Amino acid sequence: MTKWVAALAYVGSTYSGWQKQPNKTTIQSVTENALSRIANHAVEIFCAGRTDSGVHASEQIIHFNSSADRTVEQWLRGANTCLPKTVRLLWIRPIGEDFHARFSATARHYIYLIDNGPVSNPFMHNQALWVPNPISDGCLQKVGSQWLGEHDFTSFRDSQCQSAHPRRRLLDWQVDRKGRYVYVHVVANAFLHHMVRNMMGVALMVGRGKKTVDFASDVLRARSRSAACETISSCGLYLHKVYYPESWAGCFSNQKSHFNSLRGL
Amino acid sequence: MTKWVAALAYVGSTYSGWQKQPNKTTIQSVTENALSRIANHAVEIFCAGRTDSGVHASEQIIHFNSSADRTVEQWLRGANTCLPKTVRLLWIRPIGEDFHARFSATARHYIYLIDNGPVSNPFMHNQALWVPNPISDGCLQKVGSQWLGEHDFTSFRDSQCQSAHPRRRLLDWQVDRKGRYVYVHVVANAFLHHMVRNMMGVALMVGRGKKTVDFASDVLRARSRSAACETISSCGLYLHKVYYPESWAGCFSNQKSHFNSLRGL
Repeated sequence: MTKWVAALAYVGSTYSGWQKQPNKTTIQSVTENALSRIANHAVEIFCAGRTDSGVHASEQIIHFNSSADRTVEQWLRGANTCLPKTVRLLWIRPIGEDFHARFSATARHYIYLIDNGPVSNPFMHNQALWVPNPISDGCLQKVGSQWLGEHDFTSFRDSQCQSAHPRRRLLDWQVDRKGRYVYVHVVANAFLHHMVRNMMGVALMVGRGKKTVDFASDVLRARSRSAACETISSCGLYLHKVYYPESWAGCFSNQKSHFNSLRGL
Repeated sequence: MTKWVAALAYVGSTYSGWQKQPNKTTIQSVTENALSRIANHAVEIFCAGRTDSGVHASEQIIHFNSSADRTVEQWLRGANTCLPKTVRLLWIRPIGEDFHARFSATARHYIYLIDNGPVSNPFMHNQALWVPNPISDGCLQKVGSQWLGEHDFTSFRDSQCQSAHPRRRLLDWQVDRKGRYVYVHVVANAFLHHMVRNMMGVALMVGRGKKTVDFASDVLRARSRSAACETISSCGLYLHKVYYPESWAGCFSNQKSHFNSLRGL
């Protein structure tokens, strides 16, 4: 039995999220089907972050166990032949028995992508949120700066959230504009259900000048979902990277270079 | 009655090409439907280049006549509300009666986009041709250099081509690599049916080292479709720009700046 770690990229638009559900097409189900065909036995996969319906990934990390004698090349070619073209296995390698894609992870890095052009880019219609109104990058940045550190993030927590507690540590928030596109990088040890999308709802109200920067800290302090704004569409949200302790990261970080250019993220 | 010139961008993947056909969804039909709703009368549109099924456009130029009293803003907002999100009206303005989107055009600029990464980018799965094998940019460039100028392009002409004659003037051929992506810019006064896709078939055989550079000139000289290679997929082909004489171009070139960043083309 070998434990394998691998990375997936996917366009979330046409899937009912990550998690297997009866009668729904999910990222987990199509990926388990593909890997099971290559393994010739049922494969169960575990991921670093269970993305919602419509959410994309430029690098979701998974692990699985298999008794099949397969090379890296056989997994890669085989799985990518069986997978739909909107889901790709980017790389794979064997890893130690005590690695767990979810529990070994120390942080998740999401990007929220905004198309701030006057007319939406049709080539990005399900891959970015179109906001034609002017956005202040400076205000967007200030919003996140007020949320950095460990807090009770109840105000950004969906009512369906199944986490044991609402405390999370926001590690980084960086706003980066490239022409018409605004990239909001959000890094935390972990996220509550809909946390990034609810944060972006507040951030965009401030970025568009409809609320002051102080509103952002007021919402956080309120510890009430009703203090915040609408849950922003999943179409601009990407699980960009998952971070692991150096001891694990060293095992596969060299595998990452070839997909840096995915969507220019 | 006012004559209007406008630009469209579209993702060709889900359409049966430009031209109206019974029981098919085409770019022309969805655009005429949208503009007719805004005009409140039937609108007939004429384009610079009738793209095939699956071919994209970053800037297709159209014109139409309307007796409706509408501002630029009303056309833009109205049409983009009625159009599917994969088709966008980028800009519009009134133009002189003797302008014709097709007959006034002096050249068409296509881009063929190749994803040369080891694993295909799922976010580009219907917007680039995936070629994992090594490609020599230098050889791709040499191929086109041998085809520059006015020639009989019968070897690259589809059997369904309805043009009166097979002579075209190839004005430019530039290969540009940005990381894993190879952009082949092809500019000609006009194109025969499937001409760019048939040229790319030969160019990729040379670029991948399966044929020598001389093969490209041999194919052109043969004036026979059977001398060339397969017709490459439409998924990587973009109508990028249409050129007009300075007298017309001056009328709308300032409208173009905001969509330069579409797909980074």
